Amino acid sequence: MVSWANAGVRDLHLDLTEAITPGMRGAREKLLTALRDAVRSGRLAPGTMLPPSRSLAVDLGLARNTVAEAYAGLVAEGWLASRQGAGTWVVNAGTEVSVRPRGTRVVPTHNLMPGSPDVAQFPRNEWVASTRRALSAAPTEALRMGDPRGRQELRDALAAYLARARGVRTSAESIVICAGVRHGVEILTRVFRGDRPIAVEAYGLFIFRDAIAAMGMATTPVGVDERGAVVADLDALAVPAVLLTPAHHSPFGMPLHSTRRTAVVDWAQRTDGYVLDDDYDGELRYDRQPVGALQGLSPDRVVYLGSASKSLSPALRLGWMALPSDLVEPVIAAAGGSQFYVDAISQLTMADFITSGGYDKHIRRMRLRYRRRRDALVEALRPFALTVSGLNAGLNLLLTLPDGTEPEVLRRAGGAGIALEGLSIMRHPHAGADVPRPDGVIVGFGTPAEHAFPAAVRALCDVLESSGLRR
Amino acid sequence: MVSWANAGVRDLHLDLTEAITPGMRGAREKLLTALRDAVRSGRLAPGTMLPPSRSLAVDLGLARNTVAEAYAGLVAEGWLASRQGAGTWVVNAGTEVSVRPRGTRVVPTHNLMPGSPDVAQFPRNEWVASTRRALSAAPTEALRMGDPRGRQELRDALAAYLARARGVRTSAESIVICAGVRHGVEILTRVFRGDRPIAVEAYGLFIFRDAIAAMGMATTPVGVDERGAVVADLDALAVPAVLLTPAHHSPFGMPLHSTRRTAVVDWAQRTDGYVLDDDYDGELRYDRQPVGALQGLSPDRVVYLGSASKSLSPALRLGWMALPSDLVEPVIAAAGGSQFYVDAISQLTMADFITSGGYDKHIRRMRLRYRRRRDALVEALRPFALTVSGLNAGLNLLLTLPDGTEPEVLRRAGGAGIALEGLSIMRHPHAGADVPRPDGVIVGFGTPAEHAFPAAVRALCDVLESSGLRR
Repeated sequence: MVSWANAGVRDLHLDLTEAITPGMRGAREKLLTALRDAVRSGRLAPGTMLPPSRSLAVDLGLARNTVAEAYAGLVAEGWLASRQGAGTWVVNAGTEVSVRPRGTRVVPTHNLMPGSPDVAQFPRNEWVASTRRALSAAPTEALRMGDPRGRQELRDALAAYLARARGVRTSAESIVICAGVRHGVEILTRVFRGDRPIAVEAYGLFIFRDAIAAMGMATTPVGVDERGAVVADLDALAVPAVLLTPAHHSPFGMPLHSTRRTAVVDWAQRTDGYVLDDDYDGELRYDRQPVGALQGLSPDRVVYLGSASKSLSPALRLGWMALPSDLVEPVIAAAGGSQFYVDAISQLTMADFITSGGYDKHIRRMRLRYRRRRDALVEALRPFALTVSGLNAGLNLLLTLPDGTEPEVLRRAGGAGIALEGLSIMRHPHAGADVPRPDGVIVGFGTPAEHAFPAAVRALCDVLESSGLRR
Repeated sequence: MVSWANAGVRDLHLDLTEAITPGMRGAREKLLTALRDAVRSGRLAPGTMLPPSRSLAVDLGLARNTVAEAYAGLVAEGWLASRQGAGTWVVNAGTEVSVRPRGTRVVPTHNLMPGSPDVAQFPRNEWVASTRRALSAAPTEALRMGDPRGRQELRDALAAYLARARGVRTSAESIVICAGVRHGVEILTRVFRGDRPIAVEAYGLFIFRDAIAAMGMATTPVGVDERGAVVADLDALAVPAVLLTPAHHSPFGMPLHSTRRTAVVDWAQRTDGYVLDDDYDGELRYDRQPVGALQGLSPDRVVYLGSASKSLSPALRLGWMALPSDLVEPVIAAAGGSQFYVDAISQLTMADFITSGGYDKHIRRMRLRYRRRRDALVEALRPFALTVSGLNAGLNLLLTLPDGTEPEVLRRAGGAGIALEGLSIMRHPHAGADVPRPDGVIVGFGTPAEHAFPAAVRALCDVLESSGLRR
């Protein structure tokens, strides 16, 4: 492990040594900023152990609590992870949220970050053809500020597509276009804003927790076990809404058990609550029994959230919400009353791409490719002492590691130029002691280009080998 | 004038008559919602006078203050306007912010709403050609989540273009792409969030006031006189930033006087404040001495804000901020740490459109057309007893009307199928008594298609004639 002395706090943060003095106001914030900068800038590599809060406090002449609170803040933000007895270490916060000043941006040799498709396969020619057709056909008013929900053409196309492909029960009237699921969560947070927190899964994407926190709202975790989210936990919580990944739990990979699906809808109906159904990779299922969207069970209590980020490219910033009808007006108002975020030409292009059949064709093609990659990865991992899960869908596998080995594996991966996501960063900072705390890494096998995939798998296996994980 | 009895409160708002009882909690909010719905839905036409707060209070059995506060709330939101002695009336809140349930959306016969270009002239073929070239040339990584500031190609193109065309002193490193100026203001509000309000002009776009308020921040007005914003007012205010329209005041139309330009930069330097330079129509100047961006005077204290909304189409949702270097990281963090809002393909297309010369060509072509329209409109308005201002730039003219005639003109315009903006809605609700309160309407002569423009001008003149405004 890289020790704190090696990492060199003084070399990293001159502001810190100059500016923080014992007893000063804002010491915690200054420390927080300095530490965050060090992680963000890539200067503290994933897996780097931080010194115990007590030692750092002594070094800096600060109260131990000040340091402990700064650490806890960065754990909540997803930069650090900690465990009783094991200390606090840097986790890889992922390319989606890293803010790296120009010039220090680290491009990994092997990009296995979860959540991204193989964008080298983006259907560029078909997309341009759809843009041309869409712009030729569009009425002049399409280039004005129009319906706050987004273009009718796209909402029509999505209503039909989502009904057919994902079992969503909706209509164009109830669909609102947004700039991706994160933006959708941001808008919904405004709708539910108040004193009650929003429930999220005890393990899940920190970008949503961050987005909710940035709106000034708290989140509170519900447990996760082998049947998915422990939705019975909701009964003890006073929350207006819960954000779930019912079709394919992120990151554990199981679908929400059928009894739980019924139970959470029942909770929503009893309490006038809402379920936010983040169907982040619903189209990419590999088993014979596709799991439909939870939304189909109760369109009046479930918000369906989807996007083109996994199916086409996260750089499109194109998402959609299928809303209970009583949420349509509040959502429009919360989004500012107009379609202030999503380009009409992109919307028209996507509508054409769906109705022309290009979208289905692309998804079928990519599903086959990803399935082959998944099979190759699972085969390559067979010799190792770890559990592979999340096999039935999506672009990621979860490798559950022997206890205590996650930081070491992440550190070695970083050293080998592999970008990976640690499991710890997915854990909600307030998750209860009853929620198991496995070590693990999430492998995004969709991210590399086709030609780069075999080398990435070999590099990963080398890291696991050198971490002593061969059976 | 439409009287309250004619407008029929009971027919409009059954919820209101059923749900509000004297002394109940939330009576003000219920009334506010019901009134807002009535205006939003178009059921209360622009120019409709509301009953005095005392009479409505008696009708509903409520305290007079409850009604007065509901009125004041809707004035602050921009739905109503009021004046001592003249009462309270409905103003046209504009297509950009109106939330109209599907089916009740009113499409005006003559659209003279300000702030929109003639989108029938959008260069569709050239845009598709730029999309094709941009997507052919783009590296694979362009389709991943990339630099949180936006695509380098676009930031490079903008840095060069803004320096050349608008006198902006910046570099690609300091530019952040956003989904229009409103989104930029939203992000900057987060950066400046705190106890101190943000200063805005006493007359200005309510969509920005709304966007700031939606972030939980207050705004406070600085005066406006014939030299533009009274920036000396800033000395008495403790604000972190002021939003101005220095090149072409919105809605009065004058450039900020040179002594004021120097004074506001001096204020920013003295107080570590920032000036937000909303250059909303800077490219569309018709006089010989273009007014450069204020930003050029002090790139370390002024944020330059621009977009493609006036030059191409508001439906593109494409804007940019040229930032003081110390604001770049805070702005990235406030935007969520990543480019979560703007489509990379649109960015690459715009970059190609600028560097290929298509953007300059389009602007030159449109400037000529708009200038011809402006001349025709000014000529047509010559027989009327009103003052025309804002002649030197942009897409709007301000017609200052005889005192007390604005509601009547707006009502008649509504009846004739003309969408116009009243001047009252632009006034900040806390603007002081020292800020003159003229009657007026803002005419967006860029909005109609070329073939529809002459009829729109004739219809407007008919309304002015029937309002008794012929000299």
